Amino acid sequence: MGKVRFSVSVSLDGFMAGPGQSVEDPLGKGGMQVHRWALELAAMRRMFGQPGGLVNASTPIIEDQFAGVGAILMGRNMFGGQPGDWGDGAWRGWWGEDPPYHLSVFVVTHHPRAPLAMQGGTTFHFVTEGVEAALARARAAAGEKDVLLSGGASVIRQCLAAGLVDELGISLAPVFLGRGERPFDDPALAALRLEQARVIEAPGVTHLRYRVVR
Amino acid sequence: MGKVRFSVSVSLDGFMAGPGQSVEDPLGKGGMQVHRWALELAAMRRMFGQPGGLVNASTPIIEDQFAGVGAILMGRNMFGGQPGDWGDGAWRGWWGEDPPYHLSVFVVTHHPRAPLAMQGGTTFHFVTEGVEAALARARAAAGEKDVLLSGGASVIRQCLAAGLVDELGISLAPVFLGRGERPFDDPALAALRLEQARVIEAPGVTHLRYRVVR
Repeated sequence: MGKVRFSVSVSLDGFMAGPGQSVEDPLGKGGMQVHRWALELAAMRRMFGQPGGLVNASTPIIEDQFAGVGAILMGRNMFGGQPGDWGDGAWRGWWGEDPPYHLSVFVVTHHPRAPLAMQGGTTFHFVTEGVEAALARARAAAGEKDVLLSGGASVIRQCLAAGLVDELGISLAPVFLGRGERPFDDPALAALRLEQARVIEAPGVTHLRYRVVR
Repeated sequence: MGKVRFSVSVSLDGFMAGPGQSVEDPLGKGGMQVHRWALELAAMRRMFGQPGGLVNASTPIIEDQFAGVGAILMGRNMFGGQPGDWGDGAWRGWWGEDPPYHLSVFVVTHHPRAPLAMQGGTTFHFVTEGVEAALARARAAAGEKDVLLSGGASVIRQCLAAGLVDELGISLAPVFLGRGERPFDDPALAALRLEQARVIEAPGVTHLRYRVVR
């Protein structure tokens, strides 16, 4: 069976997004600074059909993020908030008509909805039975491949606290946000045993990987 | 003028000590896991007159920690708590009769006390006018050399929030503590601009250094 893993960018004070997240400002106040290393990369811009951008030691982090991934799990806000829009099926998330996943994506939400098939092989499945049920469905869809937890903070925190994660990817940005969403803020996390697996220094960010030891 | 800097070990959730710190358990519950990389080193054991220990990529971090340092600033708990013992001058901190500093050490405290000269050149000065006053005295004592903030979390947080720190050293341990003392937990820190200066991967820890850009 594949691994359950995630890659998050966090500030030095542990925030992956700033305060005041909204549809207009999905990263919250200051959150752009945490994700700048990725947004500036040619590899990232290409995923959204944009030209230009940088090539550096972070490039393989972006290029390889979906390697070996068979399904994706995300929270409602990662799909694109606005539950009020869901009733009539008008809101199709903020990933565009051809989302960069090309896989089954399981969205944890309180709002039931039929699966939404997009261009390029991405289908969003909406799961209302909680994170563990959504992860079970993602695992089944992934088969021998990995499940990637793409966020937000709450989904990652819940999966970690339930002992369901095998590998942690942390991209540490040289910034303090002061407030916002912390994925690693739960006393239950103290039960995990980790080992440091890999460190990559890149311009304006350090990429860390840890394995959960069972 | 020298720099104001610190080196702290923190968990992945940002704690430098666990909950329940006391004289008997100065690192708090689980805190040992954050500092194990240092405590296992021959270079660290030698500072306390103990034989044996490891030599690895972390060794220079310990060996060089006092290089260029002219004075040290610490909180009361780093000196050694127990204010009740201070009245009669009996409590001489928990660094032994020959502390590993060999410098003037300024201790931020609410309890006035005459300077305490130890063996080997370490003198503890007790400052009751707050962190900024203590740092000003340490700067004056350090002259052209650096001031090292040796902790605890509160002293580091206050100096960072006041914009008084030039360089941050963070040794990131592969563990979650879940609770405890966070040095980087203050909305005021969002005002700092940082640049990533150095990354060293070592067994069971990653050593990061950041500079404050003004």
